[in-house]
Amino acid sequence: MYSAGDVRVEEREDPRIVEPTDAIVRLTATCVCGSDLWPYRGIEPADHQVMGHEYVGVVEEIGADVKNVKVGDFVVGSFVISDNTCEICRSGFQSKCVHASFVSQIGTQAEKARIPLADGTLVATPGQPEPELIPSLLAASDVLGTGWFAAVAAQAGPGKSVAVVGDGAVGLMAILAAKQLGAERIIAMSRHPERQALARFYGATDIVEERGDAGVAKIKELTDGMGAHSVVEAVGTQESFMQAVGSTRGGGHLGYVGVNYDVKVPGIELFFAGIHTLGGPAPVRRFLPDLIQLIWDRKIDPGKVFDLTLPLEEAAEGYKAMDERRATKVLLTL
Amino acid sequence: MYSAGDVRVEEREDPRIVEPTDAIVRLTATCVCGSDLWPYRGIEPADHQVMGHEYVGVVEEIGADVKNVKVGDFVVGSFVISDNTCEICRSGFQSKCVHASFVSQIGTQAEKARIPLADGTLVATPGQPEPELIPSLLAASDVLGTGWFAAVAAQAGPGKSVAVVGDGAVGLMAILAAKQLGAERIIAMSRHPERQALARFYGATDIVEERGDAGVAKIKELTDGMGAHSVVEAVGTQESFMQAVGSTRGGGHLGYVGVNYDVKVPGIELFFAGIHTLGGPAPVRRFLPDLIQLIWDRKIDPGKVFDLTLPLEEAAEGYKAMDERRATKVLLTL
Repeated sequence: MYSAGDVRVEEREDPRIVEPTDAIVRLTATCVCGSDLWPYRGIEPADHQVMGHEYVGVVEEIGADVKNVKVGDFVVGSFVISDNTCEICRSGFQSKCVHASFVSQIGTQAEKARIPLADGTLVATPGQPEPELIPSLLAASDVLGTGWFAAVAAQAGPGKSVAVVGDGAVGLMAILAAKQLGAERIIAMSRHPERQALARFYGATDIVEERGDAGVAKIKELTDGMGAHSVVEAVGTQESFMQAVGSTRGGGHLGYVGVNYDVKVPGIELFFAGIHTLGGPAPVRRFLPDLIQLIWDRKIDPGKVFDLTLPLEEAAEGYKAMDERRATKVLLTL
Repeated sequence: MYSAGDVRVEEREDPRIVEPTDAIVRLTATCVCGSDLWPYRGIEPADHQVMGHEYVGVVEEIGADVKNVKVGDFVVGSFVISDNTCEICRSGFQSKCVHASFVSQIGTQAEKARIPLADGTLVATPGQPEPELIPSLLAASDVLGTGWFAAVAAQAGPGKSVAVVGDGAVGLMAILAAKQLGAERIIAMSRHPERQALARFYGATDIVEERGDAGVAKIKELTDGMGAHSVVEAVGTQESFMQAVGSTRGGGHLGYVGVNYDVKVPGIELFFAGIHTLGGPAPVRRFLPDLIQLIWDRKIDPGKVFDLTLPLEEAAEGYKAMDERRATKVLLTL
């Protein structure tokens, strides 16, 4: 990304092993994330930088210390590099690993990527995947893992009402996760007919089109006046964040995964809401083995979230389509 | 309180049973809360209003439907009225009961108080207490219950490091709670020698005098660079709140109970902190039976948090002493 709105695909030098814990992955597919739109729209700075943090592919080379993946393995990796052995990782928060770094600094909208701490970051699939599984495995790298984390953070489960604020890819994946986790009622907050349909496909039982205070009122109406047990925030604006806070019942759980640059949470509103919150960059690595197995066994179909597929060379068009909301999520083939 | 800074003790009509679920309690003792200083300092409006929400005393009269307490019982009540039967109460969040109201609107800095929903709000002690137990039982009504909730919200427990931001009564009670809950290390953030001594009495193993970023750095230094597992925020200012967020390790738990009128939480800082939070008005009712028993068995001594005792008539001096930080917490006798 040369600057906001200016995405180009260029030849770069092949990555090489630098540390003995590195692996070189030849990518099979990559994609554009909603968070890539922050620099694209000029909200985050963008200055001639590599892009992309979602990836699946085949291990081409490993450093001398890598033990958990081998050359030829098909792997899925988290968008956060983690050692998966430190105390924070062992508590399930690999996105806050003491050696954490973001894959976005490596840039996986590319043919190959050097993945540091390969043993902690990459998970090999049980074998070479059928081509139709590639989109789903790619989704596990971020949007599925993030939506799953949000649903877990919101403690979605049997007997619970779950409200999902945001009908982007992550919100849709949170719906899929809530369904898998056994939630009784799943309310999607969405105004877009196609996304409503996808939300229902993934398990939404109700759709709420209202936003802000009206949206909160509607959620309360659907939950005996109390609010939802579990709420997922997957947008990251002031309105969506406060809508999520207001939709959560006292003592309920809010999982927030929308990157919320411009949000200022009024402390006193959060205080009197009396709710649990958990959010941030998702520790996707925690969930990857289970998610890969669910995909492998064809129990979930997160790949349907990709509604536009382009060759990597046309990445710029992918950004444009997502920015203009013509696409929910764009897969880039190699 | 006639207006900010103007507290008077006046004759008022005796309270009477209004609803069949009411009880009239003749107070044995009451006290001044840190949160009473908000209107005293003009941060909340104050206009000829009753004050006080902490109370212990003897039931003098009950409504026709009251079953759990009887005339003559010595009772402790939460500072929030709750039915203790609704779905929210049963989930342990009585402060968000569907019938919740605040005792501060009744005003227990008084000789008698009408307590609505007596069955859900009041808990009788095992018998008439020895006089030396009165301060501790009174503490259970708010500061102990609130500090306990904060420690539970922060998931203080065996093997955990706990940092407590705030050395007021609630912070000190959170230290007591963390100790009772089995925390391994308890770090009190305090600059006042007397309060540091009390913090150590209640179980603090370390004292940090630094505040803000320097305080956060010190907490990290004491916790292998990761931050504390469990952090309690018991002040309610911007600096203290962000100090608490910064002191919590990734995936750790922050319990916040300082009433935070002026706090604006930068969403993105909370996001990248990757922490659990839970806060608000404490569901004291959840903890009351256990806290009363611990006090009755003389296993805890929360009453030491009162460092000034005055007759109710001198309530104004009690406010002044707390406002000027000459007293941590003022007990008012009747």
